[in-house]
Amino acid sequence: MGCDPTHILIVEDEEAHAELTKRAIRKAGHANRIDILNDGEQALDYLFNRGIYSDREKYPCPALILLDINLPGIDGIEVLKRIKEDPRLKPIPVIMLTTSKREEDIAASYGHYANSYLTKPVGFKEFEEKVMQIDFYWMNLNEPPTTSED
Amino acid sequence: MGCDPTHILIVEDEEAHAELTKRAIRKAGHANRIDILNDGEQALDYLFNRGIYSDREKYPCPALILLDINLPGIDGIEVLKRIKEDPRLKPIPVIMLTTSKREEDIAASYGHYANSYLTKPVGFKEFEEKVMQIDFYWMNLNEPPTTSED
Repeated sequence: MGCDPTHILIVEDEEAHAELTKRAIRKAGHANRIDILNDGEQALDYLFNRGIYSDREKYPCPALILLDINLPGIDGIEVLKRIKEDPRLKPIPVIMLTTSKREEDIAASYGHYANSYLTKPVGFKEFEEKVMQIDFYWMNLNEPPTTSED
Repeated sequence: MGCDPTHILIVEDEEAHAELTKRAIRKAGHANRIDILNDGEQALDYLFNRGIYSDREKYPCPALILLDINLPGIDGIEVLKRIKEDPRLKPIPVIMLTTSKREEDIAASYGHYANSYLTKPVGFKEFEEKVMQIDFYWMNLNEPPTTSED
């Protein structure tokens, strides 16, 4: 697959959440590269190496995707669906990280093979703590997908 | 879906591993019911409520499945595949827990939408610790799939 095993991609339109997530991941210390993309279309362009992201060396697939659901334009469920339908991208763990606790969102996420679904805590400390626990599980405990034919 | 949110199903043919896993989950304290099944056919009979498991009240679908790969008869990858192809069962998080670090097993697991892939540590203490961390993530942090049409 040629993904960067120390690269985490955050897809999040709320700047405060994105920054908080990034800081917590930095603090956890397993990722060397953290990218933030602000909407679903950008995320798909990045992952499918389209447009300004066409250089696969410069924009490798990540080891982990933290994906918000409520995004402008193409939403997180649609991004998830496209990732999990693609043979090259589908092994990448996709963690839904959202404020939504709606049953439809949870059902749609698992229905389209989200690896995990987590809600954002309200408090700053709790948010940071949760992101660090996500990071620990996926970047330390979980066995990452390995190379497959491209 | 009508799954029991405190029920963990362990599919494992090695008795020592199964018992160790069960003990660690008990210690973690989030599960009220832990069932061990020893092969893939039994696991599918249970999950699809066939044969002796036909009573869905008595044998509800679990909140989490810990699935070994090397099983007699139907192996773990095939069990995973059948679960993830089934609309009722596919939302259930399936964690591959195996001694195998083979690239083919990792690729096949993610290819068939395993939620996560973890290897068994050799040492007793490390094994217990890892199972407790798995339990913490999936039974405490992760948002479980909710009821869907049956």
